[in-house]
Amino acid sequence: MGSSEKVTTAPAYSYLGPAGTFTEAALAQVPEAAGKTWHSVNNVGEALADVVSGRSVAAMIAIENSVEGGVTATQDALANIPNLRIIGEYLVPVEFELVARKGTTLAEVNIVNAHPVAYAQCRGWLEKSIPHHGHIPSSSNVAAAASLLENDTADAAIAPAGIARHYDVEVLASGIADNPNAVTRFVLVSKTKELPAPTGSDKTSLIVELPDDRSGALLEMLEQFATRGVNLSLIQSRPIGDEFGRYRFVIDAEGHARDERVADALLGLRRFSPKVIFLGSYPRADKVTTEHSKRYADGIFTDARAWLAEILGD
Amino acid sequence: MGSSEKVTTAPAYSYLGPAGTFTEAALAQVPEAAGKTWHSVNNVGEALADVVSGRSVAAMIAIENSVEGGVTATQDALANIPNLRIIGEYLVPVEFELVARKGTTLAEVNIVNAHPVAYAQCRGWLEKSIPHHGHIPSSSNVAAAASLLENDTADAAIAPAGIARHYDVEVLASGIADNPNAVTRFVLVSKTKELPAPTGSDKTSLIVELPDDRSGALLEMLEQFATRGVNLSLIQSRPIGDEFGRYRFVIDAEGHARDERVADALLGLRRFSPKVIFLGSYPRADKVTTEHSKRYADGIFTDARAWLAEILGD
Amino acid sequence: MGSSEKVTTAPAYSYLGPAGTFTEAALAQVPEAAGKTWHSVNNVGEALADVVSGRSVAAMIAIENSVEGGVTATQDALANIPNLRIIGEYLVPVEFELVARKGTTLAEVNIVNAHPVAYAQCRGWLEKSIPHHGHIPSSSNVAAAASLLENDTADAAIAPAGIARHYDVEVLASGIADNPNAVTRFVLVSKTKELPAPTGSDKTSLIVELPDDRSGALLEMLEQFATRGVNLSLIQSRPIGDEFGRYRFVIDAEGHARDERVADALLGLRRFSPKVIFLGSYPRADKVTTEHSKRYADGIFTDARAWLAEILGD
Amino acid sequence: MGSSEKVTTAPAYSYLGPAGTFTEAALAQVPEAAGKTWHSVNNVGEALADVVSGRSVAAMIAIENSVEGGVTATQDALANIPNLRIIGEYLVPVEFELVARKGTTLAEVNIVNAHPVAYAQCRGWLEKSIPHHGHIPSSSNVAAAASLLENDTADAAIAPAGIARHYDVEVLASGIADNPNAVTRFVLVSKTKELPAPTGSDKTSLIVELPDDRSGALLEMLEQFATRGVNLSLIQSRPIGDEFGRYRFVIDAEGHARDERVADALLGLRRFSPKVIFLGSYPRADKVTTEHSKRYADGIFTDARAWLAEILGD
Repeated sequence: MGSSEKVTTAPAYSYLGPAGTFTEAALAQVPEAAGKTWHSVNNVGEALADVVSGRSVAAMIAIENSVEGGVTATQDALANIPNLRIIGEYLVPVEFELVARKGTTLAEVNIVNAHPVAYAQCRGWLEKSIPHHGHIPSSSNVAAAASLLENDTADAAIAPAGIARHYDVEVLASGIADNPNAVTRFVLVSKTKELPAPTGSDKTSLIVELPDDRSGALLEMLEQFATRGVNLSLIQSRPIGDEFGRYRFVIDAEGHARDERVADALLGLRRFSPKVIFLGSYPRADKVTTEHSKRYADGIFTDARAWLAEILGD
Repeated sequence: MGSSEKVTTAPAYSYLGPAGTFTEAALAQVPEAAGKTWHSVNNVGEALADVVSGRSVAAMIAIENSVEGGVTATQDALANIPNLRIIGEYLVPVEFELVARKGTTLAEVNIVNAHPVAYAQCRGWLEKSIPHHGHIPSSSNVAAAASLLENDTADAAIAPAGIARHYDVEVLASGIADNPNAVTRFVLVSKTKELPAPTGSDKTSLIVELPDDRSGALLEMLEQFATRGVNLSLIQSRPIGDEFGRYRFVIDAEGHARDERVADALLGLRRFSPKVIFLGSYPRADKVTTEHSKRYADGIFTDARAWLAEILGD
Repeated sequence: MGSSEKVTTAPAYSYLGPAGTFTEAALAQVPEAAGKTWHSVNNVGEALADVVSGRSVAAMIAIENSVEGGVTATQDALANIPNLRIIGEYLVPVEFELVARKGTTLAEVNIVNAHPVAYAQCRGWLEKSIPHHGHIPSSSNVAAAASLLENDTADAAIAPAGIARHYDVEVLASGIADNPNAVTRFVLVSKTKELPAPTGSDKTSLIVELPDDRSGALLEMLEQFATRGVNLSLIQSRPIGDEFGRYRFVIDAEGHARDERVADALLGLRRFSPKVIFLGSYPRADKVTTEHSKRYADGIFTDARAWLAEILGD
Repeated sequence: MGSSEKVTTAPAYSYLGPAGTFTEAALAQVPEAAGKTWHSVNNVGEALADVVSGRSVAAMIAIENSVEGGVTATQDALANIPNLRIIGEYLVPVEFELVARKGTTLAEVNIVNAHPVAYAQCRGWLEKSIPHHGHIPSSSNVAAAASLLENDTADAAIAPAGIARHYDVEVLASGIADNPNAVTRFVLVSKTKELPAPTGSDKTSLIVELPDDRSGALLEMLEQFATRGVNLSLIQSRPIGDEFGRYRFVIDAEGHARDERVADALLGLRRFSPKVIFLGSYPRADKVTTEHSKRYADGIFTDARAWLAEILGD
C-alpha cells in the first residue's frame, strides 16, 4: 500500500507517443522528467486531460512548427481548458527519413504512409523522388512507420530520424524534409500557479479575445504591446468558432510577467479584452536575451509610480 | 473529331471530389458551371494546377471554416502559385452524419474514419456518444465514407449530409457537428485578369508579407486599412516558413479595388510590404452591403486629387 | 502688534491689476477670496512670485483666450517655476469698450492705446471704424485707459466693459470685440500639494516635454491619452527655447488624477517624457460632466490589477 | 512718363520697418530684392495687404522665433488671407544691444523701451544688470531706439545689433539676449501659384483645421504624416477662435509637394480635414538635406501606382 501510494504520487509526464516521436525527444530535454513515469498518449486532448486529472504533473505538447505554423489543436485546447500553465519551451529539429520494410528499394515505393503535417513538409522531395506516389494519412509519424510492420497497405513511411532504433525498418532516404532548418516548438504544460523565476530570456504566452463591438480592435490590441515596448515573437489568429469574423489571438510576448513593461501590457490587455488567458511566463528555449529599449526599463515604471503616488498623496 | 474539339475547348471546373463533398455543393451554386464538365480532383494543389494548365477555367476550393479557421493548404497554395484570381465566394452549411456499412449499429462502432477537419468539428458529439472510439484520418469526407465499402479498417465514417444518395451506407446519426451554425466558405479561382464589376457588396482578398526589418510591422500594416476606413473580415497569420517569427497575412478587406478607399489602401500596402499578392475583388456570398463612413466616400478621394493637381500645376 | 501679525497671516490673493481688469473679475468669482486682501500686481511673474514667497496664498492668472489662444507668458511661467498647482478655473466674458478723455468724439481718435491681446481682439472693429488709426501697446487693459488721464500720447483706449466705474473716461463705443462670444479662462494658482476632491467635472493640467531622440514623439504622447480614453480640451505647443523644433506641450485633460484612467495616463506620460509637470486636477469652470466610455471605468482598472496580482502571486 | 511707368511696374518688396529691423536683415538676404523698391510697413497685416493689392510682389514677415515660438499674428494672417504662398525662408540671428542717448551710462538707466518679444528675450540680462528697471512696450525694435531721440520717457532701448548705423545712439551693452543662439525665422510671401523647384532641402508649410466631430483628430492628423515617413519641423496649435477647444495647426513638413511621400500626405490631409491651406513648398534656409527612409522613396510610390493600375486594368 505504501509503495502503491508512492507510485501514484510520483510525478508522471504525458506526451504524444509512441516512443520515437519528436514529442518524446522534446520531453527528453526536461531534466526533471528523467527517470519518471512517461505516459504515451494519442493526442493533445488526452495529454492535457492527464494534467487536469492529476495523472501527470505535466504534458509535453507541440505548439508551433516553423514551416506549418501553429498547431491549431493545441492552441484551441489551451483556449478551452482552464487553469493550465506553460512552464517551459523546447525545440526539436524536424528531421525526417523515408523508411520501409527490410529489403524494399526506393524504386519499389508507390504508396507512402505519413502524418499529414510530415507529408506536407516532405512534399517537395517526394514529388521529385517518387513522382507518382500515393499518400495514406496516418495519425502520427511513428504510427506511420509502425503500420509498415502490421500491413502492406503502404510501401514506405515518413518517420522521425532515428526511428530505426525503435522499429525494424530500413532507411531508404534521410534528410528528406524540404526545409533543412525546420524546427518544432514544444511546450511543457502543468497546473501549477507558480511562475518560473524571470531569467532575462523569457516568454509570456497569452490568448486574447478581441472585443467585437468596434473596428480596429486588433490594432488597439497590438498597441497595448507597442506602447510598452514589448515585442511579440508569435501572433496567430484563431476563429472563436461561433461565427465568421470573430477571432482570438494566440500570442507570445518577449519578457516575463514580472518585467514591469510586460505586467503593464497585461493590465492594458485585460482592460481592453473581454477575455485574456494567461498561459504563463517561462524561459525561452533559444536562451536569447530579451532586448528592450531602456525607455522601458523596470526603473522607469517604478519611478513613475512613485511620482504619481506623491501627486495623489498616497 | 469536331465533337472532341468541342469537348476540349468547353470550359471545365475542378473541385475536391468525389461527388457528395461540400465543395461539390459549392460548385453547384455557380450558374456558369451548370452543364459544364466538372473535374473531381484529390486536393487543392491539383485543383489549382488544373487552372494553371488550362484544363479547367476555374476551381472551387475551401478557404475558411467558421469553426476550424482558415484552410491553411489553400492559403499557402494561393501564396505560392502566381497569377490566380478569386472571382466568387460561396457558403455551404456544414452538416455531418455518422454513416456505416448496412446493418451496423451505433453500439458496434469503435473506429471512426474521418477527415481531420470533420473529426474536429464532431469531436464533442463523438466523445459523448462513442467515448472510447479510435480515429483514422482520411483525405476527404467522402473518401471516408467510400472506404467503408472497400475495407473494414473502420466501423463508421463522418460524411457530409446526403452521402447516402451517392453511397450504399447506413446513416447512424445526423446533425452531429458540434456547432449547428458551422459554415464553410469556398472561393472560385481562375486565371482571368478581369475584375468582376463592383456590386456594393464586395470583398478584396490579399496576401501580405510583413517586412522583417522593424518591429510594429503588423501594427503598421493594419493602419494602412484603418486610416482609409477599410474594415477587414478576415485576417490570418501564416508562417512564411523559413524561420520562426516571419509571417504573411491572409486578408479579406471589405470593398472592391475600384472603391477609392480600397485602392488607396492597396497603394499603401504595396509601398509598405516586400510582397503583396492581390487575389481579387469579387461579390460577397452574404450580399451584405459594405458600410463605410462618408469620410471615406469616393468623392472625398477624387476631390483631394483635384486639389493636389491644382497645387502641383498638373 | 497682535493685529499686525494677524494681518500678515491672513490669506491674501494676487491678481493682474489694477481694479477693473478681467483678472479682478475672475478673482471676484472665488468665494474664499471675499473679504481678504487682494494684491494688484503688474504681470504674471509678479503674481506667481507672490505665491512662491508666501505673500499670497494664491494668484489669479489668465491662461487662455478663446480667440487669441494660450497666454504664452503664463504657460512659460508655469513651466519654469516649480511647485505650483492650479486649484480652480474661472471664465470671464471678454467685453471691450473704446474709451477716451471726456469730450472726445470717435471722429477725433487717431491713436489707440491697447494691450496687444485686446487690440488683436478688436482689430476688425477698429479697421472698419477708425481705418487709419495708430496703435500704442500698453501693459494691461486698465493701464491703457488710465494712461489717457496721465498723458495725451493716445486719443483713446480699449478697456474692459465697466471701466468708467473706476476711471473718469467717456465710453465712445461698447461691444467692440470682434467675437461676441470671446471668453478668457483664468486659473487660480497656489503652492498647496493637496488635490481638490474629484467632482465628476474636472480637468487635469500638465506640461509635457517631448523626448527629442525620436520622430513621432507627439503621436506617441497623444496615444498615452487615447489608449486610456482620456480626452484633451487643450493642447498647445510651446518652444522649449533652446533651438528650433524642440517643444513642450501645455495640456488640459478631462478628468481628475484620482480617476483611474487619468492616473494611468499620467504614469504612461511620465515614463515617456523626460519632463512632466503636473499642474493640478481641479473642478472645471463650465461644470460639464466628464464623459468617458464605460470601457475606461474605474472598475475596469481595479479588476485588471486584481487579476494581475493573482497571476504574480502578490 | 515712360520711366514713371517703369517704376510702377518694377517689383517692390514690403517688410516690417523701419530700416535696421531684423526683417530688413532678412530681406537683404534675397538676391532678387537687391536694387528694388523696399516698402517699410508697420505690421504683418500691412505687409500682406501690399502683396494682395499688388503694391509689392512679395513681403518678408517673421514667422517663428526659436525662443518665443510662432508669431501668432503672422500665423493667423496666413490662415485668413487666401491665395498667399511662401516662396522662401530666411534666418536672422537675434542679437540685441542696449542703446541710449549719447552720454548716458548704464547706471543711469531706469526705464527701458522695448518691443515685448525683445524684452522677453533679454529679461534675464535686464534683471541682473538693471534690477529695478521699468519697461515701456514699443511697437518694433527699431521704434524703441528711435523714440529715444524723440522724447525722454525712456532712458534706454533694446535694439537690434547694428542700430547705431541708423540712429545716433550710444551702445551701452551688446549681446544681451539671454539665449545666444536665438534665431528668428522669416518667410517671403507672394501671390504666385508657381511652386519653386524641389532642391532636396525643402519645406512644405500648411495650416490644417481639425475636424471637430471626433476625438483623436490630432492623432489622426499626425498619422497622415507618420504613415508616409514625413517629418515635421514645426507644429503649432492656434485656436480657430470661435470657441474653446477648436484648433487649427500650423505645420512645416520636411520635403516638397513634388516629393511623392509629401504629395500623398497632402492627399491624406485633404481627405481628413475640413480645411487645409497649402502655404507653399520652398527651399529651407538651413540647406539641410531632407532625410527620409528609403521605404518612402519616390520610386516606391510610382511602382505602387503602376502595380495598382495593372490590377485595375487602367
